[in-house]
Amino acid sequence: MAGDGSDQRALQYEQTLMYGRYTQELGVYAKEEAARLRESGQRRSRTLDLLEYDKGRCAKCRRSGYPYVLEAPAQDFISVCTVRCQKFLISRVGEDWIFLILLGLVMALVSWVVDFCIAICLQAQKWMYGGLDSNLFLQYLAWVTYPVVLITFSAGFTQILAPQAVGSGIPEMKTILRGVVLKEYLTFKTFVAKVIGLTCALGSGMPLGKEGPFVHIASLCAALLSKFMSLFGGIYENESRNIEMLAAACAVGVGCCFAAPIGGVLFSIEVTSTFFAVRNYWRGFFAATFSAFIFRVLAVWNRDEETITALFKTRFRLDFPFDLQELPAFAVIGIASGFGGALFVYLNRLIVQFIRKQKTINKFLMKKRLLYPALVTLLISTLTFPPGFGQFMAGKLTQGESLVTLLDNRTWAKQGIAEEFDYIGNAQAWKHPQVNVFVTLVLFIVMKFWMSALATTIPVPCGAFMPVFVIGAAFGRLVGECMAAWFPDGIHSDESIYPIVPGGYAVVGAAALSGAVTHTVSTAVIVFELTGQISHILPVMIAVILANAVAQSLQPSLYDSIIRIKKLPYLPELGWGHHEKYNIRVEDIMVRDVRYITLNCCYRDLHSVLMLGHLKTLALVESAESMILLGSIERAQLQSLLSQQLSRSRRMEYIRERAAAEKKCLSDVSNSDSEDGRQRASQEVRFQISTEESTVSPTRPASQKPLKPALKRPSVMERPTKLPTSPQDHSGIALKSLFCSSPDVEALEDDGDVEDDMTLREIAEWEERQLDEQVDFNNCKIDPAPFQLVERTSLHKTHTIFSLLGLDHAYVTSIGRLIGVVSLKELRKAIEGSVTVKGVKVRPPLASFRDSGTSSSETEATELHKLWDRHRNVSLPGEQPTSESDEKSQ
Amino acid sequence: MAGDGSDQRALQYEQTLMYGRYTQELGVYAKEEAARLRESGQRRSRTLDLLEYDKGRCAKCRRSGYPYVLEAPAQDFISVCTVRCQKFLISRVGEDWIFLILLGLVMALVSWVVDFCIAICLQAQKWMYGGLDSNLFLQYLAWVTYPVVLITFSAGFTQILAPQAVGSGIPEMKTILRGVVLKEYLTFKTFVAKVIGLTCALGSGMPLGKEGPFVHIASLCAALLSKFMSLFGGIYENESRNIEMLAAACAVGVGCCFAAPIGGVLFSIEVTSTFFAVRNYWRGFFAATFSAFIFRVLAVWNRDEETITALFKTRFRLDFPFDLQELPAFAVIGIASGFGGALFVYLNRLIVQFIRKQKTINKFLMKKRLLYPALVTLLISTLTFPPGFGQFMAGKLTQGESLVTLLDNRTWAKQGIAEEFDYIGNAQAWKHPQVNVFVTLVLFIVMKFWMSALATTIPVPCGAFMPVFVIGAAFGRLVGECMAAWFPDGIHSDESIYPIVPGGYAVVGAAALSGAVTHTVSTAVIVFELTGQISHILPVMIAVILANAVAQSLQPSLYDSIIRIKKLPYLPELGWGHHEKYNIRVEDIMVRDVRYITLNCCYRDLHSVLMLGHLKTLALVESAESMILLGSIERAQLQSLLSQQLSRSRRMEYIRERAAAEKKCLSDVSNSDSEDGRQRASQEVRFQISTEESTVSPTRPASQKPLKPALKRPSVMERPTKLPTSPQDHSGIALKSLFCSSPDVEALEDDGDVEDDMTLREIAEWEERQLDEQVDFNNCKIDPAPFQLVERTSLHKTHTIFSLLGLDHAYVTSIGRLIGVVSLKELRKAIEGSVTVKGVKVRPPLASFRDSGTSSSETEATELHKLWDRHRNVSLPGEQPTSESDEKSQ
Repeated sequence: MAGDGSDQRALQYEQTLMYGRYTQELGVYAKEEAARLRESGQRRSRTLDLLEYDKGRCAKCRRSGYPYVLEAPAQDFISVCTVRCQKFLISRVGEDWIFLILLGLVMALVSWVVDFCIAICLQAQKWMYGGLDSNLFLQYLAWVTYPVVLITFSAGFTQILAPQAVGSGIPEMKTILRGVVLKEYLTFKTFVAKVIGLTCALGSGMPLGKEGPFVHIASLCAALLSKFMSLFGGIYENESRNIEMLAAACAVGVGCCFAAPIGGVLFSIEVTSTFFAVRNYWRGFFAATFSAFIFRVLAVWNRDEETITALFKTRFRLDFPFDLQELPAFAVIGIASGFGGALFVYLNRLIVQFIRKQKTINKFLMKKRLLYPALVTLLISTLTFPPGFGQFMAGKLTQGESLVTLLDNRTWAKQGIAEEFDYIGNAQAWKHPQVNVFVTLVLFIVMKFWMSALATTIPVPCGAFMPVFVIGAAFGRLVGECMAAWFPDGIHSDESIYPIVPGGYAVVGAAALSGAVTHTVSTAVIVFELTGQISHILPVMIAVILANAVAQSLQPSLYDSIIRIKKLPYLPELGWGHHEKYNIRVEDIMVRDVRYITLNCCYRDLHSVLMLGHLKTLALVESAESMILLGSIERAQLQSLLSQQLSRSRRMEYIRERAAAEKKCLSDVSNSDSEDGRQRASQEVRFQISTEESTVSPTRPASQKPLKPALKRPSVMERPTKLPTSPQDHSGIALKSLFCSSPDVEALEDDGDVEDDMTLREIAEWEERQLDEQVDFNNCKIDPAPFQLVERTSLHKTHTIFSLLGLDHAYVTSIGRLIGVVSLKELRKAIEGSVTVKGVKVRPPLASFRDSGTSSSETEATELHKLWDRHRNVSLPGEQPTSESDEKSQ
Repeated sequence: MAGDGSDQRALQYEQTLMYGRYTQELGVYAKEEAARLRESGQRRSRTLDLLEYDKGRCAKCRRSGYPYVLEAPAQDFISVCTVRCQKFLISRVGEDWIFLILLGLVMALVSWVVDFCIAICLQAQKWMYGGLDSNLFLQYLAWVTYPVVLITFSAGFTQILAPQAVGSGIPEMKTILRGVVLKEYLTFKTFVAKVIGLTCALGSGMPLGKEGPFVHIASLCAALLSKFMSLFGGIYENESRNIEMLAAACAVGVGCCFAAPIGGVLFSIEVTSTFFAVRNYWRGFFAATFSAFIFRVLAVWNRDEETITALFKTRFRLDFPFDLQELPAFAVIGIASGFGGALFVYLNRLIVQFIRKQKTINKFLMKKRLLYPALVTLLISTLTFPPGFGQFMAGKLTQGESLVTLLDNRTWAKQGIAEEFDYIGNAQAWKHPQVNVFVTLVLFIVMKFWMSALATTIPVPCGAFMPVFVIGAAFGRLVGECMAAWFPDGIHSDESIYPIVPGGYAVVGAAALSGAVTHTVSTAVIVFELTGQISHILPVMIAVILANAVAQSLQPSLYDSIIRIKKLPYLPELGWGHHEKYNIRVEDIMVRDVRYITLNCCYRDLHSVLMLGHLKTLALVESAESMILLGSIERAQLQSLLSQQLSRSRRMEYIRERAAAEKKCLSDVSNSDSEDGRQRASQEVRFQISTEESTVSPTRPASQKPLKPALKRPSVMERPTKLPTSPQDHSGIALKSLFCSSPDVEALEDDGDVEDDMTLREIAEWEERQLDEQVDFNNCKIDPAPFQLVERTSLHKTHTIFSLLGLDHAYVTSIGRLIGVVSLKELRKAIEGSVTVKGVKVRPPLASFRDSGTSSSETEATELHKLWDRHRNVSLPGEQPTSESDEKSQ
């Protein structure tokens, strides 16, 4: 666990929505909202009086938009008019479809601009390479330096600006949509880093994709747009609405990346959700269609295209797309792609783990953080150098060009028999004077396979979908060419000759391999939309399903694999047909030893529970005998209760009272005592500061540990919430220094009239007395309806409920009595225990190499901010820590 | 409310899963399961000892299939082997994919056979019509009689065998997937009635569709297959698995109907679900693909097709499918289709309501139940008679033929200018020597529009998707032909001429209109799969989205409209952008006056609560002061508690005890008393029987009322649960006669040793004493974790939770204290109140005409069965009424 610190530090996520979206809001959020609404309601009624005469027109607006009315002081007629106009505008602006159109528009523009820049970058490389054809070495230098520079820049830029932008983004979005708040993942800085990083990374010509990052970029866009529009109105602050918009944004991301609205919606559903609301599906469709439309219209306006068509248009014949007897070949592609997909995921994970395990490599690379990207790029671009090895694997083609040639509806294999077929344009790259086209294809597949797996481990914003898609297309093409060579006149036995179309096989292969890697079936839809032809629907569907069946039984999906590597909080899927899950019950997996507090407990109990426990929330029961569950309380709440009880201000109060009583008789002793007190005070302040400093220092790992989901790691206590155990008599001071912040510091200054004349011993005694008092829960936010299960709920149902409601833990009750608790951790264990498929179980991985880069000095500022935030959150019981961090992260 | 009885009687649904899938099972079902498992566990351990030596191979099988082990008495080696083989086979059979493949296979066969029969029927009509061309009257007779006979047969057959088979089936499936158990909707009889009824109905050539019924048929198939396979293994009895399989079956239904697996999955999600589990999506894809594949392969094997292609293949050009400047025309199609779709739904509902309201028509049609179908058919077929009015609307074409001609990629409008274009084959039907093709199209659209709306009200198994699809295609064609006439050389301004393709407009129109009627966007995908071309993706998506936007703001979807007409329990959808829903709180809509029982209440309290209340479940609180919610109890449970307390057997026990005490001194008086007792006993039995008879008689409406969802109708008490109020001293007898059945009758016979010598007065006194005893909840099934909300939960979130978990009601608690209850009814009111769009709100409709047919004499047997079932359910506290009725309904 010791080596764990660095990557966890880097992870920077925080599950503040600890016990799920619903329960969280039902309790804490609802109360806060209630207060806000009550307040606004009062203000509103004032405004409404003024507007009463104009009821007819405004009634609807008012209902939908009253929070905005408050902003404008409605004193006279003009201001009333202004308010009305403003309200009308804002109520329009506040509507979903406006938001979705804006989102679609922005994303289409981003996608188009990114594509445009990438195209320019790639052209520049070609131009450089082409211009230097006199000197092979210079040519090589140009060919290699260009991507190395771009990738290094991309890696460095991302690292400096926002390390969260690294990688695909789909795993993180999946986690966020599950209700976990990942810090800094939805900020403007991340947006800039992701867009620029992605453009550079893809402009380098490495086998990287733009799909995953685009999902992240679209979510970023939605979050930022939401934030921007919340300047106008209140509706955008609603958290469940934000989640809905993020779900739509994921669809937009895929949709505008491939101009594939339907496939985009489906793909985003499959990779990010476990349960999906059909109303989000409509939102996604709407936004993705608009986005794809604008994206393609931009191409038409730019004269790239004559009209709106598919990105990689194919021209297969319509009347007889394939023969029934070709289906076994398609099935073979599907099954092989399944194995290939699993291998890809495994290889990708293996590379990450290998680099992590090799201590020396790791240490070296940690120091020179940009060396790894540069080395990988150098290796890959050297191998693809067209006059070198690249000539055997169509190295000079960019990803898009390879795909276009692979989907071509002409057959290459004939060339093996008779040299009649002319390779036109880019397709020439596949033709080598010495070697067969089959060899070229095999080399291409093998080389690109490991290159893609390696390239996607580079810490730049990148996806793996497109590289895998191209590899799949190449594999399909290979099978197709083999079939064409085997049956030169087609299989069909009737009079009409329908030659085999290897391009169709390429389509099938592309869908199957990308489906296998991502564990989705909607890649089928994506290929139809990408190619503009649906004639191969049945082969594609069959291959995709077979590929999924094979891959899912061997490996997790690429995104789940990354989630595990990054240790994001996740809930494994229930596989197919694992009947035993219907028979495992909650009582078999629940933790029976629940930490709880009773309604009539004293602060000492609170103290000991907080000392012992590690849970983020604690159950509140009526009494230890009845064990009737009343609700749950966040740990931070209890800590603030405790710290308030032992706070300096309360002690000052006590001192003041004591002083008032003792004033007359003990006036001569007070001088020396106050001297001592002043010493203590300054000492205390120093202590406080030093604590804060020490938590900032990167050498103290525990304080930089991100907050983990509650109940997640029983063996490790979270430092910020840990209570010092040995110096019992110092607990108050220690508590304060850990929990309290500004308000208490103010209190220190406010209490100028009395002086802290207590000795440490006296303080300890006073604290002991305080600890024996009964806890007053009135100022404490209690979640009054934590989620409850009964002991005989099946694992299957528990999984459903957890994923439906995004729960983190649920209490197990029996007729109101608390008998246990089950958390994500237990559930995960139970599922993985029962769904143990060989090779799937990822051993607790070591520090994520990719993420370890983020724990460097340039992020210390962020760390500091985070720490301060946390301190503020903990110390202000009147505010709501969750919503704060929410806003921050969006 | 008085006239309501007949349709409610006919409705025959029962929401036994009253408080949702999850809570229901968490509580009641779980306990029952626990008992079953414990028992089987014991038996298993015995068997396991025997199988211990063969651990290696069996370990896996045993885990997944142990219930089967129990069936075989494992005494010797051979039986062990048998068990193992059996187990292996069954564990294979039990896997999901086997089930899904079987389902897909069966459905493909059914679909193909139905299509084949329909084709034969249609050919027969054409042949008859063609053969009689010498005599116009005979021709007319043949043209008209044939469909009338078929439709009448279909209506009659369906009415007699299974009235539940009438109509589309999608509304019912939506309700069932929401967790409501509709009685008799998933039986074999319904399957037969639906398949045969559908074949005849479609064979008549009326404008009816097969999609909706196929969703129902697939669900029937899944339910029956599940039942059949549960003969082998236990996994099929799991209720949540059944729901999952039903969701997959809906996808299969659409998939094999149109050979559109992707569109099928999406369409079924959109029309049946509010929240969708992604794992069901995979199941659906798998089964639907397999089904579509087999369906198309059958066509190939039957030599209808050369290879697997789309059902209505189009051949639009690929390189330039449409011009950007044509997009406004597509948008116009979308918007107009939106209005048209809303009009269709409105018209359909209007017809149903008109016939219901006209008392005289209604009464007449009720008597001659087959007259309405016959009249409608006569009217429609008269109007389509080809030599008559049919010549102006391509009347001689069947639905499929019209669609094929409408999607043709040749332009008809040119013929208006120059007579150069030859109408080939069926397309000739659109050409009329006198009138323009535009007139033909307009007439076709207008006539088919009201015909389809009318035809779908005929009480036969039929859907409305296909007719609407054809009308949409015709409308699109009309716009396309107009455009083609307007721009004969296409709009494109460049050198190349791309003429307008009216067929593409037809595709867009078909998708848009069917999308508007069903409120789905997946019709877009369906048209791509149906036509085999995806080149018009953007126009189609834009039109479908616009059509949906318009239609959704005007009317509910056709299926929701039927749900409301049939008064199935439903939860309205939250529309887009209704911000106010984020601001309505549960406390604004909840019922504060909650009926509850306390833990220490006496039977008298129970009695009075049961007398007052009407709720299906009651809250159990700790005490009236604390109001801490402990759980909820079903009404039936309480009734059985009460009836047990006042049961004859307990009274006999009491008599026996009293008799033992009084034996010596009162031996001479006993004779006359026992005589009296015997009289009482016989009287009681008679009373019992007469009660049962009276509930059977169709003249007593209340007892035949189907069980409505709990909390649904506060003003009407359900008769079977009603307690007689006036003769307080007879309550025991009355209770017994209402609640008890066989076990009590047995008890009557068992207690032969003592005789019931109590007078009515004595009984009353005894009962009074019994009522004062404290309730013993030990034998009572308590749901220990009913769903709880807090008062500040927003309406939006409440809606989400209700639809996610399929809840019927939820308690509102505040730190454990029960403060209110919110049910579907309140939620519905709140949503419809805030989402009042003009024209949407359906007034409580009168008796459903379509369903009123089911309340006839032939269903009395069913009613009797139901009544008996209900009696049994109520009286057997050890068993689980829900699961029983569950099984029955599947």
